[in-house]
Amino acid sequence: MKVNNRYYRTIWLEANSVFMIDQNLLPFEFKIFEAKNYQETCMAIKTMIVRGAGAIGIAAGYALAQAALLANKDIYKKNIQKAKKDIENTRPTARNLFIATERVFKAALKSPKEAVKESQNIANEDATACLSIGKHGNKLIKPGYGIETHCNAGWLAFVDYGTALAPIYEANKTKKNIFVYIDETRPRNQGAKLTAWELKNENIPHIIIPDNAGAHLMSQGKIQIIITGADCIAANGDTANKIGTLEKAIAAKYYGIPFYIAAPRSTFDLGCTTGKDIVIEERSQDEVLYQIGLSIQNKIKKILIAAPGFTSNESCF
Amino acid sequence: MKVNNRYYRTIWLEANSVFMIDQNLLPFEFKIFEAKNYQETCMAIKTMIVRGAGAIGIAAGYALAQAALLANKDIYKKNIQKAKKDIENTRPTARNLFIATERVFKAALKSPKEAVKESQNIANEDATACLSIGKHGNKLIKPGYGIETHCNAGWLAFVDYGTALAPIYEANKTKKNIFVYIDETRPRNQGAKLTAWELKNENIPHIIIPDNAGAHLMSQGKIQIIITGADCIAANGDTANKIGTLEKAIAAKYYGIPFYIAAPRSTFDLGCTTGKDIVIEERSQDEVLYQIGLSIQNKIKKILIAAPGFTSNESCF
Repeated sequence: MKVNNRYYRTIWLEANSVFMIDQNLLPFEFKIFEAKNYQETCMAIKTMIVRGAGAIGIAAGYALAQAALLANKDIYKKNIQKAKKDIENTRPTARNLFIATERVFKAALKSPKEAVKESQNIANEDATACLSIGKHGNKLIKPGYGIETHCNAGWLAFVDYGTALAPIYEANKTKKNIFVYIDETRPRNQGAKLTAWELKNENIPHIIIPDNAGAHLMSQGKIQIIITGADCIAANGDTANKIGTLEKAIAAKYYGIPFYIAAPRSTFDLGCTTGKDIVIEERSQDEVLYQIGLSIQNKIKKILIAAPGFTSNESCF
Repeated sequence: MKVNNRYYRTIWLEANSVFMIDQNLLPFEFKIFEAKNYQETCMAIKTMIVRGAGAIGIAAGYALAQAALLANKDIYKKNIQKAKKDIENTRPTARNLFIATERVFKAALKSPKEAVKESQNIANEDATACLSIGKHGNKLIKPGYGIETHCNAGWLAFVDYGTALAPIYEANKTKKNIFVYIDETRPRNQGAKLTAWELKNENIPHIIIPDNAGAHLMSQGKIQIIITGADCIAANGDTANKIGTLEKAIAAKYYGIPFYIAAPRSTFDLGCTTGKDIVIEERSQDEVLYQIGLSIQNKIKKILIAAPGFTSNESCF
């Protein structure tokens, strides 16, 4: 995808370094972070410099290739075993991460060169799968469609194209004159921050809407299709995704508007029979009470946006 | 209602001054603003120091009483006529404002004393109506109920008790062990800022939730009733209220959870046959793109929370 008219992937390997777009600074600063060894890549995964199901997997694969490249030859196997463990400890619930470390570890047992090749394969397969989602999904989009999307399932969450946004990119490429309604996606605002930034770079007409506004826009006939990504899909098709996805789906059903989940095969967890088996992550309530943004002085600030002294015996999402 | 264990109304008249809680500073500062003449009260309405359907009407009535009290006796009628016009120009779409100025103007033609009396009547009637909503609404609430509310239809929007929150206050008084889920209510966060502040002052257990989260909580059986206020109710019962109310209503219907609108008779506009006749106000998109909150230095700050340079050809809500 393009940023300032230059082609980028979200994350890539060059010599011994992993380079990645620093997603903690977006959309306020565009900066490439360089991780010079696998430990620095682990730190980047932990601190969410890189985030998103696909991108985390690719980062993990690259990290293990780095470990193989920089390993002490005398204790090579021991070195890469330790690296594998360290990498797997960064985000222990990320499915793609474990798939990547398993694959690259097997290749690394042959040679560092094979490890690098396998890590590149994972990245390329991700890009190919997302492009394919884009081409299939584009068939569902008619010229002039208003499209609503939730959260960020764009190329920042993968290595290129993304999932929910891939059909939108294809529709734009094939000049379908679309308009995208982006849910801001509280509490972390991935829609307002990341999806809007992606679409702006691709010059796709869009607007950021409060998460609240979807049903009203549907009632006005402004939305013809809704596409979101997925965190996890159970064997029966039940899908877990960012908080709010359920509300959009119910509103879409009410208004008879088609709602699609765009995801690669790796998002299916056949170990979950239905959605009830999917564990829903509950995060700190600070994510609801505070906002991070850019002050008038162009400095990134954190502010409290709710009644101070607010306490509760339940955490938020 | 009580603030720091002292009884307050949202707005009151004392000698020639109108006193009101400065709602622009809440929840970060609790400050009483004094308007010494009707011009200052007009300014307070315009700048939203006082907001909310009921409170605006009462402010307008008090302003005209102030004008009568401070009028030049030689040109008394001319003075109060000009004041009436000035007051009506502050928020020309606020229905309650016009009802109040009409009533107080008629009384002011008799004497300033009558004007004061009529303006107090309007405030007292508002408090009585809201208390009555509370008593009726409380009958719908069973012990242990989880109650969801949207925006702020509490006492800050009226003179006391409020509308949607009045049944909650009554349920708490009658020890029903309720728990309130407050939608933060983007973009202006009246839920997170005002409703949470009200409930905190009344020691009612509550949590601020992203506007996104309602349907998920309903699906988990945590919500037994939803109560919101209304901006306008058409003759057929169609209701306009803060953006997001429609989405909650659709989700409630889907899960079979009762959804109630709490409003005084003055909210009905029988000139509107159905909801289609109600004009929906569209506000500046800056409300979505910026957030106001408290910095670590305890200063009120405005920050940009979305992709910078965001432009659009449509305004937000």
